[in-house]
Amino acid sequence: DTAESRGGITVKSDDGRFEAKIGGRIHFDTYIPVDDDDVGDLTGQTNFRRTRLILDGKAYGWAYKFECDFTGTGTGCFREMWLGSTLGPVNFRIGQAKPYRGMEELTSSNEILFMERPFATASGIYSGNQYAQGVFLDSHGANWTWAVSGYSLRNEEAPPTEGVGAAARVTFAPVLNDETVLHLGLSASTDRPQGEQRDGSGNPTGISVRDASGRAFGRISGGTRIARTSDERTGLGGELAFRTGPFYAQGEYAKVDYKSDTAGDESVDAYYLQASWLLTGETKPYDVKKGVFKSPKPKAASGAWELKARYDVMEGETAPNDKISNWIVGMNWFVNPNVRFMLEYLSGKIEQTTDTETQILQLRSQFNF
Amino acid sequence: DTAESRGGITVKSDDGRFEAKIGGRIHFDTYIPVDDDDVGDLTGQTNFRRTRLILDGKAYGWAYKFECDFTGTGTGCFREMWLGSTLGPVNFRIGQAKPYRGMEELTSSNEILFMERPFATASGIYSGNQYAQGVFLDSHGANWTWAVSGYSLRNEEAPPTEGVGAAARVTFAPVLNDETVLHLGLSASTDRPQGEQRDGSGNPTGISVRDASGRAFGRISGGTRIARTSDERTGLGGELAFRTGPFYAQGEYAKVDYKSDTAGDESVDAYYLQASWLLTGETKPYDVKKGVFKSPKPKAASGAWELKARYDVMEGETAPNDKISNWIVGMNWFVNPNVRFMLEYLSGKIEQTTDTETQILQLRSQFNF
Amino acid sequence: DTAESRGGITVKSDDGRFEAKIGGRIHFDTYIPVDDDDVGDLTGQTNFRRTRLILDGKAYGWAYKFECDFTGTGTGCFREMWLGSTLGPVNFRIGQAKPYRGMEELTSSNEILFMERPFATASGIYSGNQYAQGVFLDSHGANWTWAVSGYSLRNEEAPPTEGVGAAARVTFAPVLNDETVLHLGLSASTDRPQGEQRDGSGNPTGISVRDASGRAFGRISGGTRIARTSDERTGLGGELAFRTGPFYAQGEYAKVDYKSDTAGDESVDAYYLQASWLLTGETKPYDVKKGVFKSPKPKAASGAWELKARYDVMEGETAPNDKISNWIVGMNWFVNPNVRFMLEYLSGKIEQTTDTETQILQLRSQFNF
Repeated sequence: DTAESRGGITVKSDDGRFEAKIGGRIHFDTYIPVDDDDVGDLTGQTNFRRTRLILDGKAYGWAYKFECDFTGTGTGCFREMWLGSTLGPVNFRIGQAKPYRGMEELTSSNEILFMERPFATASGIYSGNQYAQGVFLDSHGANWTWAVSGYSLRNEEAPPTEGVGAAARVTFAPVLNDETVLHLGLSASTDRPQGEQRDGSGNPTGISVRDASGRAFGRISGGTRIARTSDERTGLGGELAFRTGPFYAQGEYAKVDYKSDTAGDESVDAYYLQASWLLTGETKPYDVKKGVFKSPKPKAASGAWELKARYDVMEGETAPNDKISNWIVGMNWFVNPNVRFMLEYLSGKIEQTTDTETQILQLRSQFNF
Repeated sequence: DTAESRGGITVKSDDGRFEAKIGGRIHFDTYIPVDDDDVGDLTGQTNFRRTRLILDGKAYGWAYKFECDFTGTGTGCFREMWLGSTLGPVNFRIGQAKPYRGMEELTSSNEILFMERPFATASGIYSGNQYAQGVFLDSHGANWTWAVSGYSLRNEEAPPTEGVGAAARVTFAPVLNDETVLHLGLSASTDRPQGEQRDGSGNPTGISVRDASGRAFGRISGGTRIARTSDERTGLGGELAFRTGPFYAQGEYAKVDYKSDTAGDESVDAYYLQASWLLTGETKPYDVKKGVFKSPKPKAASGAWELKARYDVMEGETAPNDKISNWIVGMNWFVNPNVRFMLEYLSGKIEQTTDTETQILQLRSQFNF
Repeated sequence: DTAESRGGITVKSDDGRFEAKIGGRIHFDTYIPVDDDDVGDLTGQTNFRRTRLILDGKAYGWAYKFECDFTGTGTGCFREMWLGSTLGPVNFRIGQAKPYRGMEELTSSNEILFMERPFATASGIYSGNQYAQGVFLDSHGANWTWAVSGYSLRNEEAPPTEGVGAAARVTFAPVLNDETVLHLGLSASTDRPQGEQRDGSGNPTGISVRDASGRAFGRISGGTRIARTSDERTGLGGELAFRTGPFYAQGEYAKVDYKSDTAGDESVDAYYLQASWLLTGETKPYDVKKGVFKSPKPKAASGAWELKARYDVMEGETAPNDKISNWIVGMNWFVNPNVRFMLEYLSGKIEQTTDTETQILQLRSQFNF
């Protein structure tokens, strides 16, 4: 058997049937409020956004992943945690993983373009539902993927709850060559809690979003939650992405309908457009197995430099017709395949009866191994 | 030095003096209530029952084990956590490990026949005392073992408490060949809290049992606890097990006497009988070092299939003379040495003033590496 | 690439550019009160003082350290957690590490002479500030070191807080040969909370000390805290250490000035002197990169034996002029490079309006890998 290090540890048996890998990631953030007049005194601070230990391996045609984020407590540390195998061309996993709900959601946190994902993900419209427990199936061809998941609404951190959900996604890349990629995607999901529902941030099918001005400043307080509880949630999403040489753009639109006997029905839209230019000439790789873009590998010893911008919106359709939006401009420096720095200037806005605006400057230092 | 993977990682020095191993286990359960009329609406759900990371190794004739279960929080994650060495034919360990209290208790959770251990273990009569901190000695011959432990009643998760305990076990296999094993065992323990005692589930020498219908549905509420506190607990246990070819049967009887100035004296019995038949013809291995049975290694590519049944009882001898019992039938599928699925149908009964019955269906998906 | 075990696991690429290491430590303590008349009934107990898992590695000229102590909960487990590289002769690290505040503080917990550090460290005068988040720079020559850190006062376990601090240290060894070392050191730090301050033990610039009679018995209750909050803390420290052959002595003096609008100003002194004699003739190694002493490697198969003693004081200069002091005598047994046992007899005293004295016996069993 052979052992290898590229920062972590990989051991493979000579016949390729056995393998184990130890990796992890450290995402260390610094937040500096630039204008916090509207929201009270924000706390400039540092924060470990992710500190994950990841073991994965395979044996006798089966595989597992054991992923824990130490910024969470106890079972709250669980991220992916599953065993799985293949049935012909289909991979299946049993345990905890991400339901298939959209391109940016399924992009690794090591590879996302900005420090935080946009509202059309579990960072917004699917808040509290980034991971689920159940069965996950996926497959792919030369330029397409499909994936289906059926799961319990159990949130491992919270007390047991009943209810089930399902999410599916298909992607297709009509143009796919070394220079240019055109990516199309569709996803749909439904979540149906049963028995007693939980409300608040633990609600498996409600919504509670982060502050427009970023993760650092916590969740929006009660009044700005767009919907609290629901008996049934139905989500639909569309993806469109394009890359040619060093240029890349990606947008998603997600619409979620909430039905609730007690809180009334509600419909919420989220959409974003993000783009980047690799100043040092690299091309963002496209992962045909997952239908997402990845981080570029730097060509030069001085690393890869990427200019980036995003506009991001989430909006309720019924009164109170809250709208949360932000734009971000920034720069990524890929020092090497393991180290990345991100600098972002974010301007966020909440439009309610009174408008609230904030600006912050944020920096991520990242090592993944 | 050489590195090897069989799903985890093992590194050994060429002279055999140094070794380190990284392993773990994922036990992912699904519970489906079949009849919950008597106990209110049970929550069908999924649950990570165990997610352990295990490091162990040796250096210069000493060894350690570092085992953490991420379903527990902070120090609650500790399972085995010790350093040790040998004194002639005797192994000793200093730190946290299992007191020697019976066959099923000392069988690895990867190898137990059913999803949960019976009442004659820390899943019942020794609840809250599965692990203890102290000194652990064991030795074995060709067909016998002995083991002694002396420990503090400290529960690492709970505030410090005073008191000490001791537990010892001997086993003997008068018949032991490739086909047939006859195993006999005896164990005894005494636990003496000092100073302030804690009550409730944290009580080091009280008892608080799981619901007859399984782990998933939490602990029995106050009224059904058989004894709450004690100043002194004395336990005695007998073991009888038999294997011939693909057939295996194992039973234990445990009797525990509680003495309490405040709660009165109490005596509790627990006993079970479990048996299995390996349809695919394997034989359950017997671990002569520990005096327990292990999981079979599948002969065929389609894995090993095992039919199983258990009847399990715990009963108080003084009023209220509560009796908790259940029977389980099920099937184990050993896909390969790392992967196992277990399917069980459990029917549980609590006999108090009013009887309570429940039936559930439960499934475990397991990867150990 | 090659894999190696000396109890843990190290994998290095053949070109030396990549490396990953898995290690850890188990420190298991037993406390036996000898005289607790003045302080009420102390609880004799066992305790896991440290159970750490440590990953560190390097890739493409960058390095990381991922260190978690499972005796802490969630982010409270973080110890060193950083990424870094070098700029010419200077090492820099970004993330969480120890501010440079004195010799004993910067000595590894695997190598400290006694079970607990003296008061002139984060075990006393810098309580709650052992680790900080920011930027850490260090460099060294043949017989000198310097180190500077600038950091946020964020305590990862506690809610976000504002404020920044800086700490620097220089050391010089005018005599440094195989036989004899004379070490001199100076350190200074300033900590300035901004915005809302937290009080109590979480206060980043207050002080809350451990009981004179050792870690085991928890923190001193409110009345004996020497200062609770401060708007500004300034620390100054001096170090003097000497080794010749098997003899070693080390002392530090630290003075900290607290300024507080609400609680008034306060000045606190801490100092200690510790010495040891290696009965088996080893010499304590001096780490020129960090300017600290390390544990000896045993020469004989029966290990190294070390006699040791310390006198340790912390004292407020304004009323109530509390003085906390203790002396310890003990013995260390270095069984091999991975295993150490420490036995200590500690006599502690708190001088307030009424004096309080305690004596305890304590034992550590340690495996580091």
